[in-house]
Amino acid sequence: MLLAVSGGVDSVVLVRLFKDAGFNFAIAHCNFQLRGLESDGDEVFVRELAQLNNVSCFVQSFDTKNYAALQGVSTQMAARDLRYGWFSDLMAEHNFKYIATAHHLDDSLETVLFNLTKGTGIAGLRGILPKKNNLIRPLLFASKENILSFARQKGLQWREDSSNQSTKYSRNLIRHEVIPALKKINPSMVTTFMQVSQRLEGTEKVLQQRVDQLRRESLTEQGEDLYLLKEKIAEQPAVVIEELLKPYGYNWQQVQEILNGLEGLVGKMFLSGSYQLNIDRSHLIISPLKKGEIGEQYIEINEEYVDNEVVKLRCYYSGEPKNFLKQKHEASLDFDCLKFPLKLRKWVEGDAFRPLGMRGKKKISDFMIDEKIPLNLKERVCVIESAGEVVWVVGHRVDDRFKVRPDTKRIFNMVMLQND
Amino acid sequence: MLLAVSGGVDSVVLVRLFKDAGFNFAIAHCNFQLRGLESDGDEVFVRELAQLNNVSCFVQSFDTKNYAALQGVSTQMAARDLRYGWFSDLMAEHNFKYIATAHHLDDSLETVLFNLTKGTGIAGLRGILPKKNNLIRPLLFASKENILSFARQKGLQWREDSSNQSTKYSRNLIRHEVIPALKKINPSMVTTFMQVSQRLEGTEKVLQQRVDQLRRESLTEQGEDLYLLKEKIAEQPAVVIEELLKPYGYNWQQVQEILNGLEGLVGKMFLSGSYQLNIDRSHLIISPLKKGEIGEQYIEINEEYVDNEVVKLRCYYSGEPKNFLKQKHEASLDFDCLKFPLKLRKWVEGDAFRPLGMRGKKKISDFMIDEKIPLNLKERVCVIESAGEVVWVVGHRVDDRFKVRPDTKRIFNMVMLQND
Repeated sequence: MLLAVSGGVDSVVLVRLFKDAGFNFAIAHCNFQLRGLESDGDEVFVRELAQLNNVSCFVQSFDTKNYAALQGVSTQMAARDLRYGWFSDLMAEHNFKYIATAHHLDDSLETVLFNLTKGTGIAGLRGILPKKNNLIRPLLFASKENILSFARQKGLQWREDSSNQSTKYSRNLIRHEVIPALKKINPSMVTTFMQVSQRLEGTEKVLQQRVDQLRRESLTEQGEDLYLLKEKIAEQPAVVIEELLKPYGYNWQQVQEILNGLEGLVGKMFLSGSYQLNIDRSHLIISPLKKGEIGEQYIEINEEYVDNEVVKLRCYYSGEPKNFLKQKHEASLDFDCLKFPLKLRKWVEGDAFRPLGMRGKKKISDFMIDEKIPLNLKERVCVIESAGEVVWVVGHRVDDRFKVRPDTKRIFNMVMLQND
Repeated sequence: MLLAVSGGVDSVVLVRLFKDAGFNFAIAHCNFQLRGLESDGDEVFVRELAQLNNVSCFVQSFDTKNYAALQGVSTQMAARDLRYGWFSDLMAEHNFKYIATAHHLDDSLETVLFNLTKGTGIAGLRGILPKKNNLIRPLLFASKENILSFARQKGLQWREDSSNQSTKYSRNLIRHEVIPALKKINPSMVTTFMQVSQRLEGTEKVLQQRVDQLRRESLTEQGEDLYLLKEKIAEQPAVVIEELLKPYGYNWQQVQEILNGLEGLVGKMFLSGSYQLNIDRSHLIISPLKKGEIGEQYIEINEEYVDNEVVKLRCYYSGEPKNFLKQKHEASLDFDCLKFPLKLRKWVEGDAFRPLGMRGKKKISDFMIDEKIPLNLKERVCVIESAGEVVWVVGHRVDDRFKVRPDTKRIFNMVMLQND
């Protein structure tokens, strides 16, 4: 087994428990070079820890900042990509069977509260799984308190992580404000959560088994197309259909619309990012979009990235205004005027909006003529829609009704990223 | 339909919406007499509201404090019992089809966070149901913010509830500390929660359907006894068995033990409050306890009442010590020494504990002789157990190891109540 070790107390305890249990393991440490000398100190510490325990140690340095900038992703996401990419290489190369991380019960509960806040289904509420493919989390039985008290009792040494990155804002809020408040109601909340997690994991399995059964009974392939028996769909709770259609890019919102459309006019079409779904007489027919066709994608609150292969956006919510007027590739909108989920789609004939600075509405076709957008690019112009209204002609102009005003309290930002 | 109207903004909005929709309804108002003149003012206000809307108004006054004292329950629980009891009478008498309450999305989310804190399964996380038998909650689509803004827009008047009862402590904590913190992550958290709730409601339905199917396939009655096919049980997620055994008083903890015992020695027995479950060769056999037999019951953290028909306890967690030494019918124990769930059961031969003030252990049989407990009462002496240790001989003496000390931080209290 390969142990992911940062040098923090969790991973140091993980190493100790593996050693005490007599397991055969090696250590992997990522140096993300985000905290200068401190990062290098962590690396030295982990190398020594491996030596003391007489196990192999793999270390890899990453230029995380640079990678994040190149890919247009957050530092946190960059670190994640880099870490799991390297782990996967290491495992293949050295024939490790499992990679173990030191996630514990507090991590799991924090994740659940975060997901509940953002909106989620059962998979987001059952917490971190103890095992997923070859990734294992052997410390999920223990709370942070348990881990700290074990470490102190054994006289272990570890490195404190001084980083307080802004990407960790949500997690810190949950850790330092929300959970302590809830602990006033139940001081053992974290331990109690283990049972909640186990029950929900079982419930999720029941749901998945039902989805598998429905897939077997109702889904047939014909060439590239999938045929889904309408009569089987109608009798299921919506959440079962959501799980069934998730692999084709349909979300909760769209599944509601599809189910409402079941009894309606035959021929109605629903676009996801890369599929179209047509309601036919006795079947729903799901077909992949042709290369170059542009699908529709929903943007939920706190959705960080959206990418329809023409436009790639990074979205974030903020309290303070940005210099939103200067750059065409950015949009800052009044959060309280928007209705989520937003939709990213191609413009269509008949679309109109009120271009920033104008009083009246204008057809997008006319707007594109005024803006002298060349014919070959017109086809690929996308819009962001909120409850049926165009709020941004992506890369060109925001709608005046949704702009940030002096009395705007909360701002929703979108930034176009370079496509690879 | 009958509308439960307190006079607060939620119920005033409910009345307005029902009136605007042209529904046929009457109003029911409970005067719990808990806030003196203010309660009477509410009553007058609701009578006037009914008159203005030209609908019938039923009003009932309750001596809530007295009822609570007589039943040995909290004021909050007394009010709840009285309210729903009266509603049910009213509905039968006047042929109402539905009773509607003004619960909204914030209420539902607060309940979910409270349940998550206490420990729960899917039923505790999907929030308040929009319809349950003849009880409906038509305002569940709306947040408190929506309701307030509607009320202001329509110029409605309502009564503010000044009560800040200690029983409402947990809810206020969630309302004023937890949710505002989570809203910093997602300002629309409450609206987002509606989707979460719908998804989980569907997931719960899938679970219930699986439980119903298992019941049909595996459960047979033979006289008073139920036979449950072992081979069907073994292949199910534990949460399905939990739901199946819930009607017989078994909880999550016991279901784990039963499942672990499936492959073990035949003949092993598990007691609930009113049933015994025996593991037989090919079946689990569930039999009701005979009258007078004493079952076992688990006490979870924040379980408020436990009652095994011999002993009825009220439990609560507190920060400050009580005068715990004076009264035999009360026990205050060091919360951090206890391991939940506790167990309430009859004492058995071989039980021993360290009576308060003593250094060594003593058999409970000897203790009862010293205490001069008459023979006919000995049979009915119960104990509270924590992780295999007796912590309280109920009504007689707490264990010295679990007593409250000067450095005790958190206290778990149990008070014996009069049985009816």
